[in-house]
Amino acid sequence: MSELISVEELQLAARNHALPLEALRWNVTPIGLHYLLIHYDIPEVDPIAWRLEVGGLVERSLSLSLDDLRTRASVELAVTMECAGNGRVHVEPHVVSQPWLLEAVGTARWRGVRVAELLAEAGVSNGASEAVFSGLDRGVEGGEEQFYERSLPVKVLLGSDAVLAYEVNGVPLPPQHGFPLRLVVPGWYGMTSVKWLARIMLVAEPFAGYQMRHSYRVRYEEDEPGEPVTTIAPRSLMIPPGIPEFTSRARVVEAGQCVVEGRAWSGAAEIVAVDVSADGGATWAAAELGDPGLGRWAWRSWRFTWAAEPGEHQLCCRARDAAGNEQPLEPAWNLGGYVNNAVQRVTVTVID
Amino acid sequence: MSELISVEELQLAARNHALPLEALRWNVTPIGLHYLLIHYDIPEVDPIAWRLEVGGLVERSLSLSLDDLRTRASVELAVTMECAGNGRVHVEPHVVSQPWLLEAVGTARWRGVRVAELLAEAGVSNGASEAVFSGLDRGVEGGEEQFYERSLPVKVLLGSDAVLAYEVNGVPLPPQHGFPLRLVVPGWYGMTSVKWLARIMLVAEPFAGYQMRHSYRVRYEEDEPGEPVTTIAPRSLMIPPGIPEFTSRARVVEAGQCVVEGRAWSGAAEIVAVDVSADGGATWAAAELGDPGLGRWAWRSWRFTWAAEPGEHQLCCRARDAAGNEQPLEPAWNLGGYVNNAVQRVTVTVID
Repeated sequence: MSELISVEELQLAARNHALPLEALRWNVTPIGLHYLLIHYDIPEVDPIAWRLEVGGLVERSLSLSLDDLRTRASVELAVTMECAGNGRVHVEPHVVSQPWLLEAVGTARWRGVRVAELLAEAGVSNGASEAVFSGLDRGVEGGEEQFYERSLPVKVLLGSDAVLAYEVNGVPLPPQHGFPLRLVVPGWYGMTSVKWLARIMLVAEPFAGYQMRHSYRVRYEEDEPGEPVTTIAPRSLMIPPGIPEFTSRARVVEAGQCVVEGRAWSGAAEIVAVDVSADGGATWAAAELGDPGLGRWAWRSWRFTWAAEPGEHQLCCRARDAAGNEQPLEPAWNLGGYVNNAVQRVTVTVID
Repeated sequence: MSELISVEELQLAARNHALPLEALRWNVTPIGLHYLLIHYDIPEVDPIAWRLEVGGLVERSLSLSLDDLRTRASVELAVTMECAGNGRVHVEPHVVSQPWLLEAVGTARWRGVRVAELLAEAGVSNGASEAVFSGLDRGVEGGEEQFYERSLPVKVLLGSDAVLAYEVNGVPLPPQHGFPLRLVVPGWYGMTSVKWLARIMLVAEPFAGYQMRHSYRVRYEEDEPGEPVTTIAPRSLMIPPGIPEFTSRARVVEAGQCVVEGRAWSGAAEIVAVDVSADGGATWAAAELGDPGLGRWAWRSWRFTWAAEPGEHQLCCRARDAAGNEQPLEPAWNLGGYVNNAVQRVTVTVID
């Protein structure tokens, strides 16, 4: 792990909020504790003037107000969202971008209109291959001035639970979560779920905007196209047990039975196992999985009772999904520092 | 300014959220954008079992449930709160603690019971000099295991607008703001406003707990007592104009009339002037102050129209209060990196 972070990276860490790990205790993350990655500035949006435009290769273009959307049939979906750059600080050599440790995650209840239903209403024309989602957040990246834009194949959207959300945890979206409307694509890393949504355009060719062509691709050399970042790789996180030391966040635990709890999630398939190690990954034992109470797209709780003996120990947790994906012990490098789902390691001092 | 931050400091920056500067546009900061400084872990509190104990040198000890508090007369107060360590990253030599840049601030509407009224109900006994406020957040700091505790002179409390708040911006306190009850002391740095409040004890002698004796004192040598950190020194912040570059947060502005807006506040006295410089502090011009719509304890808006000409410029803003306190141009060092209210500097590239 790189030992030093620049002030430029710190500027990003200050504005892009992480989930404090003890907030894993809530099945639904309270507003203000969910992670935030805001590429440019949070835009100011007048909800009265705002419209969602749906156009391009559709049979009927739509221009919808917030009320138009609110009066349609809605669904509420509990979704665990994670940034594709989560764990970036732990990869070597160092990658300069938002310096996430492990806490770029959160689970929320998103209410809105199903994308598939809105596309059916607009009518997908023959030849439409992708939908391009455009946000109102604007900045400069890679030397290009741009609005934040991402695309998804129409086929993926029609087969997904993706929603256009105007509420989170029962209240209107706060500004930082994309007011007045955002996309939420369950199971995919957060970059897919465009915030401050203004427009959905159906197009014939794969969209080659900056955030598709350059960002969010697993690449090992600058001049290769690489593979796109898509669904969330499995990860488990524990609530660090005991109490913290203020500056170092080092943990102090009393000897005896210590219940270690956490959450695990995967975009590709459901979580089937979480293992815990108390010796830095040398030996493992199975944690007990909780009920998947919030459904397929939200994290699953787990717990493990550890007989804590005096001394220093390194606790680790490792998740596996039904597709056989398992967290690696060591971080894997790529140019953007994406999809590093190496196991969490928490050093604990047990006292008598 | 120190150029490098350790991973330990980054851990603190990840969990202690800053206000993204564009969020200065809201007079009342939306929940989730207000700054957070959480010394240890956010505690889990059962609001049914929870009680506020008021004891020590009082005529009648009180043990109050949340409902007991909610049924009392309440006030709502708009308060700008700021961390005493705001600006710490800019002081030299480097101070290791929560690495705040400039954004450890926010304004909220806090509803609750006036502390002065509760003390009157309990009856302050002769000889009571201070009230000690104890939180439920527990950790290790300076080698001492402790609950977070701070005291205030009874005289200060009786003459203040301090409230015991159970609501923020019209909703019950979220966990990160001190659920179910916190102290809010207008005009004082945030360390005073103890969260997750469990107990108020009136005592005869000045309280010598860690957070009074060691932390939050302006000291220049380890073995001197130093001066306590108290009310908020004046500061102004601008919304960085134009659009940001993703990694560096550098600003790009179009040439022409550019409205620069921001907020200013001071705990000691009301804000009477904000000046703006577009040449790094060489020359200054007065900004126009907005109405103090939220009252004495909240920040005041200001605006300045800048004729932006192509090239690179450094924008600065400087607040002055009615007591004659003015922001310095350069940071001042002390051991804890407290109360650094040097002017904000925003580098802007103006393009044609």
